[in-house]
Amino acid sequence: MAPRQISVADISSHNKDTDCWIVVDGQVWDITKFAPEHPGGPGIIYKYAGRDATQAYNETHSPAIIKNNLPVDALKGTLDRSTITAEWSTPSAQQEPRESKAASSSSPKKPPLDSLINAHDFELAARNTATAKTWAFYSSAANDLITRDLNARLFNKVLFRPRVMRRVDKITTATSILGHPVSFPLMIAPAAMARLIHPDGELALARAAHSRNILQCISNNASYSASEIVSQPEVADHPFWFQLYVNRDRSKSEALLRKIHTHPNIRGIVVTTDAAAAGKREADERVKADESIRNPMMTSSAKNDKKGGGYGRLMASFIDPDLNWDDVAWLRSQTKLPLLLKGIMAADDVKLALDAGLEGVVLSNHGGRNLDTSPPALLVLLELHARFPEIFTRHHPASPAVKAGRARPFSILVDGGVRRGTDILKLVCLGAVAAGIGRPALFATGYGQTGVEALVDILRDEFEVAMRNVGITSVRRVSARVCQLGGDR
Amino acid sequence: MAPRQISVADISSHNKDTDCWIVVDGQVWDITKFAPEHPGGPGIIYKYAGRDATQAYNETHSPAIIKNNLPVDALKGTLDRSTITAEWSTPSAQQEPRESKAASSSSPKKPPLDSLINAHDFELAARNTATAKTWAFYSSAANDLITRDLNARLFNKVLFRPRVMRRVDKITTATSILGHPVSFPLMIAPAAMARLIHPDGELALARAAHSRNILQCISNNASYSASEIVSQPEVADHPFWFQLYVNRDRSKSEALLRKIHTHPNIRGIVVTTDAAAAGKREADERVKADESIRNPMMTSSAKNDKKGGGYGRLMASFIDPDLNWDDVAWLRSQTKLPLLLKGIMAADDVKLALDAGLEGVVLSNHGGRNLDTSPPALLVLLELHARFPEIFTRHHPASPAVKAGRARPFSILVDGGVRRGTDILKLVCLGAVAAGIGRPALFATGYGQTGVEALVDILRDEFEVAMRNVGITSVRRVSARVCQLGGDR
Amino acid sequence: MAPRQISVADISSHNKDTDCWIVVDGQVWDITKFAPEHPGGPGIIYKYAGRDATQAYNETHSPAIIKNNLPVDALKGTLDRSTITAEWSTPSAQQEPRESKAASSSSPKKPPLDSLINAHDFELAARNTATAKTWAFYSSAANDLITRDLNARLFNKVLFRPRVMRRVDKITTATSILGHPVSFPLMIAPAAMARLIHPDGELALARAAHSRNILQCISNNASYSASEIVSQPEVADHPFWFQLYVNRDRSKSEALLRKIHTHPNIRGIVVTTDAAAAGKREADERVKADESIRNPMMTSSAKNDKKGGGYGRLMASFIDPDLNWDDVAWLRSQTKLPLLLKGIMAADDVKLALDAGLEGVVLSNHGGRNLDTSPPALLVLLELHARFPEIFTRHHPASPAVKAGRARPFSILVDGGVRRGTDILKLVCLGAVAAGIGRPALFATGYGQTGVEALVDILRDEFEVAMRNVGITSVRRVSARVCQLGGDR
Amino acid sequence: MAPRQISVADISSHNKDTDCWIVVDGQVWDITKFAPEHPGGPGIIYKYAGRDATQAYNETHSPAIIKNNLPVDALKGTLDRSTITAEWSTPSAQQEPRESKAASSSSPKKPPLDSLINAHDFELAARNTATAKTWAFYSSAANDLITRDLNARLFNKVLFRPRVMRRVDKITTATSILGHPVSFPLMIAPAAMARLIHPDGELALARAAHSRNILQCISNNASYSASEIVSQPEVADHPFWFQLYVNRDRSKSEALLRKIHTHPNIRGIVVTTDAAAAGKREADERVKADESIRNPMMTSSAKNDKKGGGYGRLMASFIDPDLNWDDVAWLRSQTKLPLLLKGIMAADDVKLALDAGLEGVVLSNHGGRNLDTSPPALLVLLELHARFPEIFTRHHPASPAVKAGRARPFSILVDGGVRRGTDILKLVCLGAVAAGIGRPALFATGYGQTGVEALVDILRDEFEVAMRNVGITSVRRVSARVCQLGGDR
Repeated sequence: MAPRQISVADISSHNKDTDCWIVVDGQVWDITKFAPEHPGGPGIIYKYAGRDATQAYNETHSPAIIKNNLPVDALKGTLDRSTITAEWSTPSAQQEPRESKAASSSSPKKPPLDSLINAHDFELAARNTATAKTWAFYSSAANDLITRDLNARLFNKVLFRPRVMRRVDKITTATSILGHPVSFPLMIAPAAMARLIHPDGELALARAAHSRNILQCISNNASYSASEIVSQPEVADHPFWFQLYVNRDRSKSEALLRKIHTHPNIRGIVVTTDAAAAGKREADERVKADESIRNPMMTSSAKNDKKGGGYGRLMASFIDPDLNWDDVAWLRSQTKLPLLLKGIMAADDVKLALDAGLEGVVLSNHGGRNLDTSPPALLVLLELHARFPEIFTRHHPASPAVKAGRARPFSILVDGGVRRGTDILKLVCLGAVAAGIGRPALFATGYGQTGVEALVDILRDEFEVAMRNVGITSVRRVSARVCQLGGDR
Repeated sequence: MAPRQISVADISSHNKDTDCWIVVDGQVWDITKFAPEHPGGPGIIYKYAGRDATQAYNETHSPAIIKNNLPVDALKGTLDRSTITAEWSTPSAQQEPRESKAASSSSPKKPPLDSLINAHDFELAARNTATAKTWAFYSSAANDLITRDLNARLFNKVLFRPRVMRRVDKITTATSILGHPVSFPLMIAPAAMARLIHPDGELALARAAHSRNILQCISNNASYSASEIVSQPEVADHPFWFQLYVNRDRSKSEALLRKIHTHPNIRGIVVTTDAAAAGKREADERVKADESIRNPMMTSSAKNDKKGGGYGRLMASFIDPDLNWDDVAWLRSQTKLPLLLKGIMAADDVKLALDAGLEGVVLSNHGGRNLDTSPPALLVLLELHARFPEIFTRHHPASPAVKAGRARPFSILVDGGVRRGTDILKLVCLGAVAAGIGRPALFATGYGQTGVEALVDILRDEFEVAMRNVGITSVRRVSARVCQLGGDR
Repeated sequence: MAPRQISVADISSHNKDTDCWIVVDGQVWDITKFAPEHPGGPGIIYKYAGRDATQAYNETHSPAIIKNNLPVDALKGTLDRSTITAEWSTPSAQQEPRESKAASSSSPKKPPLDSLINAHDFELAARNTATAKTWAFYSSAANDLITRDLNARLFNKVLFRPRVMRRVDKITTATSILGHPVSFPLMIAPAAMARLIHPDGELALARAAHSRNILQCISNNASYSASEIVSQPEVADHPFWFQLYVNRDRSKSEALLRKIHTHPNIRGIVVTTDAAAAGKREADERVKADESIRNPMMTSSAKNDKKGGGYGRLMASFIDPDLNWDDVAWLRSQTKLPLLLKGIMAADDVKLALDAGLEGVVLSNHGGRNLDTSPPALLVLLELHARFPEIFTRHHPASPAVKAGRARPFSILVDGGVRRGTDILKLVCLGAVAAGIGRPALFATGYGQTGVEALVDILRDEFEVAMRNVGITSVRRVSARVCQLGGDR
Repeated sequence: MAPRQISVADISSHNKDTDCWIVVDGQVWDITKFAPEHPGGPGIIYKYAGRDATQAYNETHSPAIIKNNLPVDALKGTLDRSTITAEWSTPSAQQEPRESKAASSSSPKKPPLDSLINAHDFELAARNTATAKTWAFYSSAANDLITRDLNARLFNKVLFRPRVMRRVDKITTATSILGHPVSFPLMIAPAAMARLIHPDGELALARAAHSRNILQCISNNASYSASEIVSQPEVADHPFWFQLYVNRDRSKSEALLRKIHTHPNIRGIVVTTDAAAAGKREADERVKADESIRNPMMTSSAKNDKKGGGYGRLMASFIDPDLNWDDVAWLRSQTKLPLLLKGIMAADDVKLALDAGLEGVVLSNHGGRNLDTSPPALLVLLELHARFPEIFTRHHPASPAVKAGRARPFSILVDGGVRRGTDILKLVCLGAVAAGIGRPALFATGYGQTGVEALVDILRDEFEVAMRNVGITSVRRVSARVCQLGGDR
């Protein structure tokens, strides 16, 4: 059945919150029922009520999302292009295009990829070339940025105690994470909305993870659906994890998990636990005040939102603050995949996770984005050494007890502030199974798949140099003794 | 009896320290006897001897003060306006109007209230828009500002140890302070002269305290009298505290307390103990040198005052440095209201206050305004945990011992450097009943009642976010264990 | 006998190192024998060989010095002014007058004295108005200034633990130092060459010390001789101390002490022990490179001195590096006055001084001028509390043991980095008998006697404010418990 | 036999990697076989294939090197100058001469040597006058420069605890290092490529070491061969050490040692152990991107090297990462000279070196150039005091046990961050036999031999001043007690 052709006059009449049609890529959708559930808030949709939302949609969403999330009968037909009027196609004041499309690779300010030699360079390139809103969303963190900045700085207070003369010509960075062999103990941590900085977004991240054989944990709030990401032919055999925000409406999380389970290359579920309340990311909030009208994520009602216009807060609204330890049983009932908890920031909670039978945790403070003055994950790792050292001696996947089957393996991953191969090596030496990178991966996505690959190559090279110079030949044979406190800033 | 009309010629003849008339709002007052007792010093009055002091008076005082403080016979009559001459009404060099009336809401530099999203923003707005003297008076602190700045910075050295998965959808910030239910453990701390930044001054603060249901402790040196503040119809049922500086002339303090007792909504007396000597607030002193002639608080003799021209020092002259522990009995004899001591900075003095039967203390260093390198109240709180932990385990109003009637409740409040909801939560977790804000409230007063309400809403929102992310559901059920030292700057 | 009139032609012929005459104030001196012993080095004298050195002489020396130090037969006669030629009176390139005579009170850049409200202000005024060389000489310190700056900063790391409600209306700052009653535990520490910044130099310091009744310790290298300083009629009854650098030629020190003993108001001898080698004060050395020709202290041979052109080094050349503990007996044999050692920087040396029977020590690192990374005196004071607390409990002049005659009094003074009354109070609370100020006093001397008085008044006022706010009523009744570590920068 | 004259046309035809002739100083070399082994990488050679490489060669190599390293039959003949064409002699875009020849002493920006009064001055002069690439190569360090900067800063956290009154007129800085008497416990540490900053390069360093009688350890990667350096007539009797990077091809190291042994004034071998992997010196890498074409060390293929264009990495390619403790026996079999290990950064490795019978170690982190966040050598020295104090009390060459023949002497040298005589004294007091300077010596080489001498004189003068002021008369009689932690930045 050929879809109905719909005139602009007809579309324009459905321009109310209670009767809201929009056009995306020439298709006309009745979005009235869905709008209130929109993760970005309904306002951004209402702004385009009765109009063409294609550009704004494509800036943040993958093509498939609208089709996958709306029922078939929401598709009312196709735009009758012959009826388009100048007035209708002119963006209203609220729909102006973005100021700078710096994320495009043709930006004159963007330095050539091969001139970037460390993660800081990627960050600087993103700061100089991404739109103000993208930069604000990616770089911002809660309140006064104390935790965000301490995350990185704390790595410099841990010095190595290198051992020399150790035959380090042949070394291996290879390891395995929950049984998946990887080339390097690095995880692309879940971070939302990678499409803001490059059209390929998470697709590029996944292809780079595959080509470099490292783990990627897909964000619940990725610009592309997990299905789109893991179904790319290039990554068919590559293992992924999926990061889940448990929805206030548990049935939605259950449905999401069922969809995830249809992809055999998704091999683990990482439930985020540190987002009970959306952090106050002030840079993200403030951009609204200056250019709210230009940003497609903004809700029309955001103008009266005293808190500002942060993407982060808007996207967090569906997350269930009532998630609790009793939910572990429910989670187990919904998935056979390994389960880890992300956002653990206290040794006591690591112990609870171990005792609850989980496969591991990601020590993380969400990049300092949710609770300012929360502790760096590296500090939690040190707290664990002080209070529950048996987690490393007995439960580390590479420990003799685990290998002999006398103890259950429990994997500790860590993210936050990782910018150097030396940072990764410190975490591994202190017992982490892998280190995650969030923002650096997003910044590298600005260069698409090759950018992410370049960043991974840089970190791996730094990691190898550090391994040799610390005297380590294998990621699986490390000792916390090669680390010592002593740096001062 | 109609008041006598008095000519400018007559008024002008009373222009000496020993025979001093001034005009305020068209009324002619003989101020000769009162001038030496003026809290702002006599000089400022003498400057207007024989002249019209209306403008200068209104910039810092409420209309009622002159009537309430002078005897009836001091009112000599009304200004015969027909006799006004150009010469008489021209301000002398010493009476120029203020340079910028930035506190008025029409100032072009003043950012819109809804663009302010944290306490720092309010401070910045005040710095950019208040007069130089007001900014100096509010922002200044003793000597080298070591304590003022450490107050704020120390909060960043205390990190949380957040606990996740704690069912934090429904949380409550409500608590009670000495039996008064409040919505949020925040107190507007006593701070002088709020009218400098907005005509509504403390009236606005009180209305905001009422509308947000938080505690306000009225300053002894408020621009409006306590009576005016608490008698506003909007706040009739709202509980207030009154902050008392004990006067060198105790009978004046007794009289003041008697007046306070006529207001049933004043429910507690907070005696400031840390102002034995006026601090050296150099920014406040220095403004004199630059623009003494423009500021109505300056005494004419201030020109020869080697210390400068600080409001703070001028206002502190009546405070009794001989206040001592024996005076607790005298204080008890003068009021039936709960009594707290403010300005306690040593664990030993907290213990003395407990043993003296007081209802509580406000740990405070006066915002660093009196003694530089005095310790942040947060440090004193930590000292208490180390030396007298039973104050928290046994005497905290929410402790089982108090609830079971086995121990006397003792309330510890804390102020100094509080700028974030996270700061407030740390104090509460460490055993404070509430946290006070001084300067931030003054800065917010620049926007009147709605400004203060906006600030309180911001802090409360930050507080709620922090509660959820630390895993706390009620202000009454907290643990110091969620705090740890670890920040580094 | 009328002195011989000597022609310019005759004078000009004595222009060699081995035959060197100079003119000062119209008197012609044969300085050949004295020049090699000149504390400022011979070069500066040779520069004026055969010429008029009046201006250069007066910039750093008092009129009496030349007469007191040269034998009678060195005076060859008086300048025959009729023979003066233009060529002779024209300063050579090496004798140009100083660039800016900023020390004169008419300098337009010099802020009015009553606008200076703390010690920093005096320092800033000196930096802006003194000559580059004077500023360099006064402000410089050894190497990288680590110690100089740490001296001041360490005071901010010691916080008070103030006690409130202590009846502090009547307090007294009066105390006594080795039996001399003083108004305030402040000492003007010995610092060289006060005349560089003001013609009155140490004369002004002494008059201010008298008028404010504080102790002054006269520098061995003062611009004026100790005799001139203490013989001023105004200070006839005021007690002074004299600081002695022991000369490599002990007979010179003996002669100096004999001269000192002729002044009954000099009541103590402070032997400097921390100047075994002249510190490398790089700012002082560097000024040579730029303007050696303009500065009268420079030696002509300094041009080839690889170390630079520092006054400090030039003046230190006569100091005996072999001074040692055995010399205490020799010192005792040379003076009946109380003897103290200055420059002690180790608790063990304090103990040695006590055991050697000395009357006290001045803990000092010479303002950081001699050995960079030497410890602040405040740190040494804390070391004493940790290692030899009986020095305070038993030997402090105000201790019961001393008062009861059961222990010998031993006075500990401290200097270095003192800039605030709070600094002085901390030292006193930690057991110091008095605190010394060196550079601040020199900077204040830029304003002459009234400048020094103003500075003392400021420090005393700050001290009194701090006493009251810490809860101290008398300098003689203090406790180290009101101090605690805790500041962070 | 007169060498064959070869035409430019002929030479130009050998312009491929597989057939590569170059001209140096008029001699034509077939460099095809050698190029792949070039320590600077083959690319730089291939860039001149078929052309005249004289200028580039001379900028970094001594004249003898090509002759000593190539077999006789590689010399094909001499350039027939009559055949030179304009085209052939014009540098291609890749062969431009260096931008600024700032290293020449005629550079207008170069301050006069006698105006430099400390090591910082030499660094600043080098920064301002050396080529960008030289500055980058010398000053760069690994990653974020954490270790490089901490090296220097840590010295300021160690304060002295000076002892006064110690008869310090006559002191001696003389000591001996492994039996060689030296004037001062300073070693010129091995640092590569001194010719980049001055034509005399390491020749100048050696002459200065001789004239000042201090130890020099010649770098394996010196611009001049060790033979050239130690064969200078001036230094015939001066003892040197040679620093060895063990080659992946051990036979090359063996050959090198055989050559070293032909020089009787080379008296020790220092094997570097901390260069298992080339550090990531980002400044060094980055210069490539900007001016690769101008720098003769750059390989033509470097353009495609993702890591950048660092000299350091290029030169490190031959170093054997498999060097291990079993190699000590092999090293002993190859040389009778004393053997030390350089780059030890853990107390445990010092112990291993002692137990392996080595003569000593150089605690070093390679100036922070190889592993960022490796510990400062000073920290390792403190770790030794905590964990193996007997190394100092028993094995120090000046200890009674060694002198009595009851213990084997073991010499600990330290480098990294040494900039002041006080730094050297701290190391000596803490048990080091000598302190090494790397970068400062290179920077001083910019002024040739006299520059290095001036630097040594400065450091020695600072050292003597510090000795006297700390109360030390001989380098051989020191105590760690005169050092204490306490500095704060």
